[in-house]
Amino acid sequence: MEINSKLKELEPNFIRHVLARCQEMEDSINLTVGEPDLKTSKIILEKSAKYMLENQLYYAPLGGVLEFREEIAKFYNNQYGSTYDRENVLVTVGATEGISTALRTILNPGDEVIVVKPDYPLYSGLITLLDAKTVYVDSTTNGNKVNADILKKAITSKTKAIILNYPSNPCGTILSQEEVEKISRLVVEHNIYLISDEIYSELVFSGNKFYSPASIKEVKDNLIVVNGFSKSHSMTGWRIGYVLSNKTLRNHLLKISQYTISTPSTLSQYGGIVALKESINLELNLKEYEKRSLDLYNMLKKIGFEVIKPQGTFYILADYSKLSTLNSLDFSMKLLEDTGVAVVPGKSFGAEGCIRLSCTKNLDVLREAGKRLEEYFKD
Amino acid sequence: MEINSKLKELEPNFIRHVLARCQEMEDSINLTVGEPDLKTSKIILEKSAKYMLENQLYYAPLGGVLEFREEIAKFYNNQYGSTYDRENVLVTVGATEGISTALRTILNPGDEVIVVKPDYPLYSGLITLLDAKTVYVDSTTNGNKVNADILKKAITSKTKAIILNYPSNPCGTILSQEEVEKISRLVVEHNIYLISDEIYSELVFSGNKFYSPASIKEVKDNLIVVNGFSKSHSMTGWRIGYVLSNKTLRNHLLKISQYTISTPSTLSQYGGIVALKESINLELNLKEYEKRSLDLYNMLKKIGFEVIKPQGTFYILADYSKLSTLNSLDFSMKLLEDTGVAVVPGKSFGAEGCIRLSCTKNLDVLREAGKRLEEYFKD
Repeated sequence: MEINSKLKELEPNFIRHVLARCQEMEDSINLTVGEPDLKTSKIILEKSAKYMLENQLYYAPLGGVLEFREEIAKFYNNQYGSTYDRENVLVTVGATEGISTALRTILNPGDEVIVVKPDYPLYSGLITLLDAKTVYVDSTTNGNKVNADILKKAITSKTKAIILNYPSNPCGTILSQEEVEKISRLVVEHNIYLISDEIYSELVFSGNKFYSPASIKEVKDNLIVVNGFSKSHSMTGWRIGYVLSNKTLRNHLLKISQYTISTPSTLSQYGGIVALKESINLELNLKEYEKRSLDLYNMLKKIGFEVIKPQGTFYILADYSKLSTLNSLDFSMKLLEDTGVAVVPGKSFGAEGCIRLSCTKNLDVLREAGKRLEEYFKD
Repeated sequence: MEINSKLKELEPNFIRHVLARCQEMEDSINLTVGEPDLKTSKIILEKSAKYMLENQLYYAPLGGVLEFREEIAKFYNNQYGSTYDRENVLVTVGATEGISTALRTILNPGDEVIVVKPDYPLYSGLITLLDAKTVYVDSTTNGNKVNADILKKAITSKTKAIILNYPSNPCGTILSQEEVEKISRLVVEHNIYLISDEIYSELVFSGNKFYSPASIKEVKDNLIVVNGFSKSHSMTGWRIGYVLSNKTLRNHLLKISQYTISTPSTLSQYGGIVALKESINLELNLKEYEKRSLDLYNMLKKIGFEVIKPQGTFYILADYSKLSTLNSLDFSMKLLEDTGVAVVPGKSFGAEGCIRLSCTKNLDVLREAGKRLEEYFKD
């Protein structure tokens, strides 16, 4: 029996090869993981456990618990100068369902979506499944930061949306306020959607500031913001995120989500409310990621990798072309065999000649990894 | 900006009108709710709360926690004589994501899917979104039980799948073993999929037995079973379900699910493990639903509704054509205004001239509803 013909076109996941081998090896150091190692705040756990014991977990209202949606809107307005209220908010099963729901809501077959390379592979996979077309633009020529000029050249009459992902996975870069404003003007001018995946918005290092297009009034009708609690609050397994958009579009997003998952976990939504209402100090975690990232950045530079200094997230994208001519999958596999350090091949992000390293291990482990790489590339 | 053109074709939800009015009214009795009022077992809550306090909730493995998948396969094999192992199991965000993932995995535009009326509206909505076609067959001519003859007449060269939902929402009926075998032979013969939505499998009343096509070896390659914990274990807000299929198809289903939600809540999966591993007595809840359903059934018959005796679930579909000539939306609204009893218009299930009543209120409340209806239709 035939299945959905688009499934064949999905790219294989290159991390898997590396991960499978890494798990077999003793003394390997796994720097592939895009998941916080720092723990969820205790108050979220304790309040959620209590809530579960005292309340039957019924279906949440479609689109999300009212109080949660209110808190999310408030949080964004405070943090990023937006003007959302609860009618702008759809609660989702993590940012993944947010991205999926956004694309499934706005795309028709044949539509084009502009995606910035290096890119998080979810985007193009979803676009393929919807029989739409990914149009790539390259940000590596501009220090891993896209700009309005690069984007403008890729716009055609078929363009439906641009996807931005800053702070960037895998690059760790952010855009300047000026550039965000220019890009916002561009999407308004061309009457297309801007999907801003801001899942790393709270992980921005000192001396840097993240500007969300949500702060720009003029782009509000074109804008779809996706965010969640996985990275900022170390709540990956809770699967809780949200989409912000204009109200009409929000009701369409809701329909897609309702026909897909009905509604996200009621307890996870409660956990999200606690995360936003309690004054949880996220500063400590952020400082830790920053310290690790800058430490690893310096080690990699010293060894001979070309690296752009990360401004946020917990990722570093390192260009190894001065060290090896292997393709990124072979390079990653060889690195693993010879040093025990597991990294993600850049190919996964459309970044051949690069590897991605995650700073989701403590400083001692990262330094051990750095030491091994230094040893290895000495020769 | 244009959005997904298929969204316009989705049917509005007729329950909403009734619900909105019901919530405004004092002393109304809401019999629209498709959600258990009986509580989740305490041991699930206590063990899950403890687990959450003692373990960081990381991302679950793609496709579901290993132990959970093993327990699900074991449960189905014990209960329904199937031969699944963990590689046949995909864990989903409730049965809703199971249905959605199944249809998105197998359908191409233009495919036909046979749906049995009265039907749960999720199916046709999803089929529409996928640019495929719902081909309805009518089971009301056969006591709200479809059979192989009815289905066979609807099969064309474009048919990709048949969806069965027994025990049936909204009818409360189940199929005989003989009929399940005949339908299984039919789908094998025509090389099409059989999607069996078995979410009410554990709610079958005494003297009746639910036969799952999962027990029939010959149909295993064609079969996609969808089930979950919402109804059997009163775990609606946990959003946890699963799909059982052959292993090749399971890996395709996994891709769709991965690109949509990444993976379901880790805690909910843990709760599902507890639900399956602890010996939880579901018999008490079942007896309660049975008592309520048969009580309401007798009341409705006495009043003059035509009702088929429910064999399971907690729903009753009642034909009011001897009592009123109104369409089902108007009838439901008038019933609500005049008696305060809220029911779902049959239109929601393609069953004009009927209403659906949920036995998810206690016996006293159901009897009060019955009394009001009896009063009302006396004249």
